[in-house]
Amino acid sequence: MSDTLSPLALPFPAMPPIRGVTAHTVRAGYKDWGRTDLTYVTLAQGTTVAGVFTRNVCCSSEVELGRLNVAQGHARALVVNAGNSNAFTGYRGREAVEAIMDQVAAHLGCPREQVFVSSTGVIGVPLPKDKARAGIDAALTAPEASWEQAARTIGTTDTFPKGATATAIVGGTTVSLSAIIKGSGMIAPDMATMLGYVFTDADVSPAFLQAALSDANTRTFSCITVDSDTSTSDTVLAFATGMAGNPRIEHAGSPGADAFAAALLAVCRELAQLVVRDGEGAQKFITVAVGGAVSDDSARRIALSIANSPLVKTAIAGEDANWGRVVMAVGKAGEPADRDRLSIGFGGTWAAREGQPLADYDEAPVAAHLKGREITIEADIGLGEGRATVWTCDLTHGYIAINADYRS
Amino acid sequence: MSDTLSPLALPFPAMPPIRGVTAHTVRAGYKDWGRTDLTYVTLAQGTTVAGVFTRNVCCSSEVELGRLNVAQGHARALVVNAGNSNAFTGYRGREAVEAIMDQVAAHLGCPREQVFVSSTGVIGVPLPKDKARAGIDAALTAPEASWEQAARTIGTTDTFPKGATATAIVGGTTVSLSAIIKGSGMIAPDMATMLGYVFTDADVSPAFLQAALSDANTRTFSCITVDSDTSTSDTVLAFATGMAGNPRIEHAGSPGADAFAAALLAVCRELAQLVVRDGEGAQKFITVAVGGAVSDDSARRIALSIANSPLVKTAIAGEDANWGRVVMAVGKAGEPADRDRLSIGFGGTWAAREGQPLADYDEAPVAAHLKGREITIEADIGLGEGRATVWTCDLTHGYIAINADYRS
Repeated sequence: MSDTLSPLALPFPAMPPIRGVTAHTVRAGYKDWGRTDLTYVTLAQGTTVAGVFTRNVCCSSEVELGRLNVAQGHARALVVNAGNSNAFTGYRGREAVEAIMDQVAAHLGCPREQVFVSSTGVIGVPLPKDKARAGIDAALTAPEASWEQAARTIGTTDTFPKGATATAIVGGTTVSLSAIIKGSGMIAPDMATMLGYVFTDADVSPAFLQAALSDANTRTFSCITVDSDTSTSDTVLAFATGMAGNPRIEHAGSPGADAFAAALLAVCRELAQLVVRDGEGAQKFITVAVGGAVSDDSARRIALSIANSPLVKTAIAGEDANWGRVVMAVGKAGEPADRDRLSIGFGGTWAAREGQPLADYDEAPVAAHLKGREITIEADIGLGEGRATVWTCDLTHGYIAINADYRS
Repeated sequence: MSDTLSPLALPFPAMPPIRGVTAHTVRAGYKDWGRTDLTYVTLAQGTTVAGVFTRNVCCSSEVELGRLNVAQGHARALVVNAGNSNAFTGYRGREAVEAIMDQVAAHLGCPREQVFVSSTGVIGVPLPKDKARAGIDAALTAPEASWEQAARTIGTTDTFPKGATATAIVGGTTVSLSAIIKGSGMIAPDMATMLGYVFTDADVSPAFLQAALSDANTRTFSCITVDSDTSTSDTVLAFATGMAGNPRIEHAGSPGADAFAAALLAVCRELAQLVVRDGEGAQKFITVAVGGAVSDDSARRIALSIANSPLVKTAIAGEDANWGRVVMAVGKAGEPADRDRLSIGFGGTWAAREGQPLADYDEAPVAAHLKGREITIEADIGLGEGRATVWTCDLTHGYIAINADYRS
């Protein structure tokens, strides 16, 4: 954890334990620091798993193996290494991950593909196998850790621990979800990584868990951006132990499937927004709401074009209602738009309507809105019914300071 | 022109006059400033024209009309307004452009579609028709202006005037090209605009002039980026007066066509690089050279992904050989790549080869290279023969200061 708390930080929530899930945190010493950096989570027999991973083709071995392992649908353990991302380390990096999988599988007596491994931190340095082995040995006998301890231990340059929780009623049974995430702080020579884990005691088939997670991902983790860069290690995994005893959710038509999916979506949205709140140098949390596009997908691409525009992000940092930059970002998105139907607003006040500045535009409420911490940019494309919302932060001197003001 | 000269600025070159081209600069007073802001260029009868325009769908009326006018192939005049981009101004903005076209066409006795208009500056304010009319009246009797005066007059937040020149031998006759450009400074509440004009005395058919300009555009203006944002007004026009008396270049097989295209390409490359040298906050000029991609197009997209990455650009600002960020940018480009064949270098020294850090990597020459003003990033994808080079600048506190440290 960094010393300087993000001004957008939220307190860690009270999160219930999840039956069948036990976390342990130890210090493997991946870096020369006095903190825990290895998280080991055991999962009850029968736990199902789903995952979504970075689309970066230069992904780490952890991502390659995780993607393969998810396919068989079950999980018994999760290991998260902080301080070394093990990315771009060739066959030695892959051997390090396989050694961890073998060690944990031997201890638990499970197939090794049921052991999931993530790593985050410096790149280009193979994960030291001896430190990982000793760390896991220690974790096997370590006391149980709290959610907050686990959230802190998976973090690297994060400025606050991040968690979210929800419940749902499935076939008359209340199931719980507790989740942690790290990201997206990034500091030389580290590489940004978003690692998120959702644990639930619900009984859910691997197929439905994957479908629900993929859908939630499209509407949450795929709708945030800090600086448009995509990590080589991004991973979100969902684990369902089944120990709540609900009638199993096999598919979208099963009783409680909708309620469970809604709870999962809520948890993922909260996790995604927490990552933005810890964006490098962030001073303002920005919601970009696009309506009137030709489709929801088109709306999302336009919203991301706005959210990724350095000129829009610096305008918000400067508390400047520069709607012309939003027009520019809409126009460059490569999506259907019509200059003369386009409307732009801030915090619920239109600045421009249908291709022209508003004649009676009152900038006072917009100026007041832009002085706050939570900013909304609205764009109505005026062509259809497509809608999307994405979240980002402003682009400030803090971002430059974190990423440029050093030599490695 | 801004007061603070870019550290990457180059002196204005000695550029020959072009027969059939006469420039005049006057003060229309689009802003409250004590400088010339209207450029009026007359072109000899029979001048052919070609153009490339922004792909931003929220383009200005100047771009819409220019695109239409280029289709008929001939030009008699160019008017460039500085201080007001006339973008996002609805029908009133379009009327202002049409009024200028009518006024000049009446004076020259030519069809109005042979009058080309560009505007750059504040957006959302219709170009004042009275100021434009009075300015053009003054320009009609103003003395001839030098290339450097014209280059200064089309500028807005540029920190230095930009020009380029070349010659070619066409069928035994020497033809000349002289060209000016403005961009890409941008300051609130202005919008970035790149406006470039190439003038030649060569006799060239409209079709070949367009083909040669489009090809040059793909390899020059489409290969530069400052911050990934795309203006609503970007325009490059080429005018050929034919007064050199060379045998007309009708098509790619005509004598001298290759030589002319090469000269046009050289001029466009120089203009494009000058825009990057005036990038907001730029301290370093970065050349990104990608080889080994599956095609030239794929290489260009990978190179732009590297050049647009805020993390790569801040690393160069920090003089940090952070090749991991280049790996990330290659991987997120959405193009074929293989982590284990990828090599990354700086200034001719490999830092990583075939997916792994180089065992005997000597950082000393790389560190020395990164302290300079002219930086090269090399990426070998290791899959094919596709090559591309793009140019960008670093991302510094200066960029944030220009774009965020103000209220409009």
